[in-house]
Amino acid sequence: MRGRFITFEGGEGAGKSTQVARAAEWLRARSVEVVLTREPGGTPRAERLRAILLERDAEPMPQSCELLLMFAARATHLENLVRPAIARGAWVLCDRFTDATYAYQGGGRGLDVREIDALAGMVHADLWPDVTLLLDLPVDLGLARAASRNGTGGPDRFESEQHAFFERVRAAYLGRAQAEPARIRVIDATSAVDDVARDVEAVLANVLEASR
Amino acid sequence: MRGRFITFEGGEGAGKSTQVARAAEWLRARSVEVVLTREPGGTPRAERLRAILLERDAEPMPQSCELLLMFAARATHLENLVRPAIARGAWVLCDRFTDATYAYQGGGRGLDVREIDALAGMVHADLWPDVTLLLDLPVDLGLARAASRNGTGGPDRFESEQHAFFERVRAAYLGRAQAEPARIRVIDATSAVDDVARDVEAVLANVLEASR
Repeated sequence: MRGRFITFEGGEGAGKSTQVARAAEWLRARSVEVVLTREPGGTPRAERLRAILLERDAEPMPQSCELLLMFAARATHLENLVRPAIARGAWVLCDRFTDATYAYQGGGRGLDVREIDALAGMVHADLWPDVTLLLDLPVDLGLARAASRNGTGGPDRFESEQHAFFERVRAAYLGRAQAEPARIRVIDATSAVDDVARDVEAVLANVLEASR
Repeated sequence: MRGRFITFEGGEGAGKSTQVARAAEWLRARSVEVVLTREPGGTPRAERLRAILLERDAEPMPQSCELLLMFAARATHLENLVRPAIARGAWVLCDRFTDATYAYQGGGRGLDVREIDALAGMVHADLWPDVTLLLDLPVDLGLARAASRNGTGGPDRFESEQHAFFERVRAAYLGRAQAEPARIRVIDATSAVDDVARDVEAVLANVLEASR
């Protein structure tokens, strides 16, 4: 049986990595084969592209380069990890996917949404997540959490953006959730970690129910 | 005064690198500021993408990933090297450009030409070469020359393609030259190096004449 493709989205400090890991644990306890991955990244080549995307570099990053690298990393990740896993029946849990491109490059950077549409059509016209969990919280709270969590090395190229950038990212995410309420479930990420996990599990339980 | 953008194209073993270097020398002797560069590559980030594009990797390379990486490298190369150089009046001589994408990814790999059109429009709708020198020679001769030249390390991901691939590349190049005869000048690359250089210089002399 075909597996499932579940993506986790949200701004800085929303707790995605924690919740993806919790969700994997919850599904594995129910005998589901889970593949945990992330974007940009998830395969060796895509992780090399992630490093190029995140580093704060002396060479300015044109917006079109950033957008094309996101989809190049996505293409190799989908072909070499996500699609084979789904085909053999695994559930793929992915930390960020194309909704993040619409939020960050479209909303945050103001890129033409039709360019993102065109690239998404080129790379994965046939594959969208079965369910997307959008962990939503106010920008201030998210940035405060992210700041207290950041270790050494300083912020990456995205984390070092300004407040207004993240407000646009959040607005773009919420706009997409409003346009696709059946796929994108908004989860209140201001609550305690266990409460957020319970909300995520409720959504996963429905998907699991429907597939048995 | 705005500089010029001159690109050199051709299949394996056509002698592009030699001819680009000769052309630079010839122009510099005429007091032209020349910037010599290549694609994919030309800036530090684009050269890192070149390495990812050329290496023979355990992770299969999806065609869409290859195409997107070519244009991502092109975007950062144009923005950070080519456009500023042309703006200050330099002549940029570039070993391969978007015609190579049409030839290798379009002709060689059989990718949909409309996808290449869309990406070229996204990345450099406003900038095409003033002149393109297409060094043309039969595939067999080119491959024999390339083989005798190859040192250690073995062929890269493109050089290790089959004969029929390079025939499609050559046909695509010649088709583009036929469609755009004013921009793309076909140079017979079977001749001796000095004769090819003389043909290239004749074209450059015309461009130089027109710009003085």
